[in-house]
Amino acid sequence: MFVLGIDPGLSRCGYGGVRQLGSATEFVTAGVIKTPPSEPTPQRLLTLRRDIRELIEEFSPDAVAVERVLFQVNVSTAMGVGQASGVALIEAADYGCEIAEYSPNQIKLAVAGHGSANKEEIATMVKMLLGLSQPLKYTDTADALATALCHLAFSTSRTSSHTANRTANRTASKV
Amino acid sequence: MFVLGIDPGLSRCGYGGVRQLGSATEFVTAGVIKTPPSEPTPQRLLTLRRDIRELIEEFSPDAVAVERVLFQVNVSTAMGVGQASGVALIEAADYGCEIAEYSPNQIKLAVAGHGSANKEEIATMVKMLLGLSQPLKYTDTADALATALCHLAFSTSRTSSHTANRTANRTASKV
Repeated sequence: MFVLGIDPGLSRCGYGGVRQLGSATEFVTAGVIKTPPSEPTPQRLLTLRRDIRELIEEFSPDAVAVERVLFQVNVSTAMGVGQASGVALIEAADYGCEIAEYSPNQIKLAVAGHGSANKEEIATMVKMLLGLSQPLKYTDTADALATALCHLAFSTSRTSSHTANRTANRTASKV
Repeated sequence: MFVLGIDPGLSRCGYGGVRQLGSATEFVTAGVIKTPPSEPTPQRLLTLRRDIRELIEEFSPDAVAVERVLFQVNVSTAMGVGQASGVALIEAADYGCEIAEYSPNQIKLAVAGHGSANKEEIATMVKMLLGLSQPLKYTDTADALATALCHLAFSTSRTSSHTANRTANRTASKV
């Protein structure tokens, strides 16, 4: 199962793809799509759509997982996050894969085991869980990979719950 | 010149189309696209995209004007506004027409003459400026029509400014 995680933003949109094969979870890709604030918003949205579409076409994800940002101090940033998440959700819907949205708390809980984990803890946990030799360069990519890992944790939880609910709960909190 | 104004929102997205022929400005269409909060966000975004695309194809606007919401008390609503405005801006960009974004203050100033106008004042001014016999049923449609009228005011201002700057300023504040 391949999951593409998205940390939406208009200036910086993080993405991260992970693949689960049996019990192994491997890193596949990660990066940041940047659009310059000097450009008009429609142009920036078209660039973002093109790049997300290319990622989806290249990796054929089984699922796209998008971070649902519920609180932003800066409302102008919140608008950009909303616009970018809309683009990601529509592209995933057009492609026809599974789509999931997770709150920052759900992601932190799934990856670091507690909802108050900070950005550095998330990046460290993502690096460890995926067995990366180098630290992740940007927090956007760490957050996107964390979102993908969160989806795998929830999927494993859902799948296992049909057969062994207690195991599923342990698996979800471990990943 | 036909302008389609959009008051973006995921639960309720207002739209309003006005046509300017010489010095006359006439009402063409207005309504609200609603998507149920009970549906998954991607599905709601696809519905919104379909309806906005149909509007653009039906009316072939010269310009699409979108209200740029800079402040929202409810951040969850702000996300929906961002997502909906992203959909509208991308559809307009795909169609290839002129695109403009206006802040609530710019719209209030253009339509009511002052930036502190409330929703009722805007609705009353829109009704008067377009010579409507009935009051507008929803504030979303009044806001969308006001956004379209704001674009006409700014366009007139820009066009006139090449020849007579003082006239342009008067026109902009009158419309």
